[in-house]
Amino acid sequence: MRLPARVTVVDVSPRDGLQNEQARITTAQKVTLVNLLSAAGMSMIEAGAFVSAKWVPQMADTAEVLAAIERRPGTRYAALAPNVHALDRALATGTKDIAVLAAASETFSRRNTNQSIDESLATIRTVCERALAAGLQVRGYLSTCFGCPYEGDVDARRVGELTRTLLDLGVFEVAVSDTIGVAHPGQVWKVLDAITAHASLSKVALHFHDTRGMALANVLAGLQAGVTTFDASCGGLGGCPYAPGAAGNVATEDLVYMLHGLGIETGIDMDKLLAAATFASNRIDHALTSRYFHASRAVRR
Amino acid sequence: MRLPARVTVVDVSPRDGLQNEQARITTAQKVTLVNLLSAAGMSMIEAGAFVSAKWVPQMADTAEVLAAIERRPGTRYAALAPNVHALDRALATGTKDIAVLAAASETFSRRNTNQSIDESLATIRTVCERALAAGLQVRGYLSTCFGCPYEGDVDARRVGELTRTLLDLGVFEVAVSDTIGVAHPGQVWKVLDAITAHASLSKVALHFHDTRGMALANVLAGLQAGVTTFDASCGGLGGCPYAPGAAGNVATEDLVYMLHGLGIETGIDMDKLLAAATFASNRIDHALTSRYFHASRAVRR
Repeated sequence: MRLPARVTVVDVSPRDGLQNEQARITTAQKVTLVNLLSAAGMSMIEAGAFVSAKWVPQMADTAEVLAAIERRPGTRYAALAPNVHALDRALATGTKDIAVLAAASETFSRRNTNQSIDESLATIRTVCERALAAGLQVRGYLSTCFGCPYEGDVDARRVGELTRTLLDLGVFEVAVSDTIGVAHPGQVWKVLDAITAHASLSKVALHFHDTRGMALANVLAGLQAGVTTFDASCGGLGGCPYAPGAAGNVATEDLVYMLHGLGIETGIDMDKLLAAATFASNRIDHALTSRYFHASRAVRR
Repeated sequence: MRLPARVTVVDVSPRDGLQNEQARITTAQKVTLVNLLSAAGMSMIEAGAFVSAKWVPQMADTAEVLAAIERRPGTRYAALAPNVHALDRALATGTKDIAVLAAASETFSRRNTNQSIDESLATIRTVCERALAAGLQVRGYLSTCFGCPYEGDVDARRVGELTRTLLDLGVFEVAVSDTIGVAHPGQVWKVLDAITAHASLSKVALHFHDTRGMALANVLAGLQAGVTTFDASCGGLGGCPYAPGAAGNVATEDLVYMLHGLGIETGIDMDKLLAAATFASNRIDHALTSRYFHASRAVRR
């Protein structure tokens, strides 16, 4: 079985994780979490989002977080900046990395961003032009690539076309996302196959939520297809399998345990990663979903 | 990616699941659980164990359970019978299927069964001779095939040799088990490769605990290697990821969701399987670990 020698892990816990947590996390605590993830050797950390504080209160202090974190050489720090106003806020912080967001499902796009897919692509075009001119690197998320909560099935060919469009607009990679956690490995192969008709898989990251427990099997399928970048959330932050509709990203510890077991380098120090998860665990109001995290604590006892 | 067209799922929740639950489950409730699993179309159900009621109180009424269940044509009902005394108790119930138990790690064998591996094989030889003479089918478990809580690494060649030995003693298949849930897909390929030097994979089942969240990735690895039988526990019964040392089998619902997604037939009706998990969920004192179970309930709300 041919697998990549090295994989890039993008930890999205300070954004995709925390934005789904109910507990109030202070700015200082967010800074500590990002610093612990840096210390663990993460290549990229999504540190926050420039979005409406009214709709996503947990992200209200992203500018302060970006201003206060220690920037480790070798780690990139991104923030979601889904529109021109958000880009202006991001530019004011001096950040070098932003992320933009489109959806592969028309209904999800309208409900989530109040824009059609075409309208959101027009927004992304403007954001990318200005961000690239300012020397920023832009990452693209493509949500609902494996299923939509409103429309059900999503056409894999559409995912391939939209991946190409986002790359043409200037994003350096597209995080092909299973927003509602319905994907299974067969679908991963199908979608990646559709993408390869339009783009190199070196430009694709996979972003799995573990709603139905498939995330790591899907990662294995992605590795076998040649994908070398995967998103994950420290501790599985943002997810609680027993709360309706709230299922987080695959836990970074579980992902890294599998990758290291497969002999794949990540540059991540597991003990330091567990230190980050332990810190996060003590700041939220429920148990983390990372299975490796709990197994490692049980073994120590 | 070549995958089998059909897979056999063995639901071990009435035994490996319930024996690790603290809540008191009545005989009638166990019978209902087995009947619901039968109705879901399960090919084999491990319905109980003839073991010491002092050490495993939850299994004290296995004879009564076996006497009361409805036997669906097409479903086999097994009980663990690890020694001659247990076999006598099993024979008295008229059951047609038993399971025996060996370990791939010497220390685990001594601590778990109070016998060396060679002594346990001698026991299994006697049990198999008598069981086969009585027309029973015998399944073999081989525990700690991917790691031992006392010894750490386990030699894959030893797993291959012991699989052959168990088959030679008369078991119809060997459930190669990751007792402590440490396996990752690379190890699955390595162990299965070592087994193929001694036995056909058509005689091998894989039995994963989901302690570190790897179970379904490991199943995918096993499917790709050609294994067509997998153990699982309805609802993930027996496991609680937040309790030290207690991590259950992979949940049957999560396994079946992945298999059906891959286009693999199981003969299992997911809605009826969820009915069994719902019944189990209402009888235990914590949330089930099956992610698909919770996702399906969230979607219904």
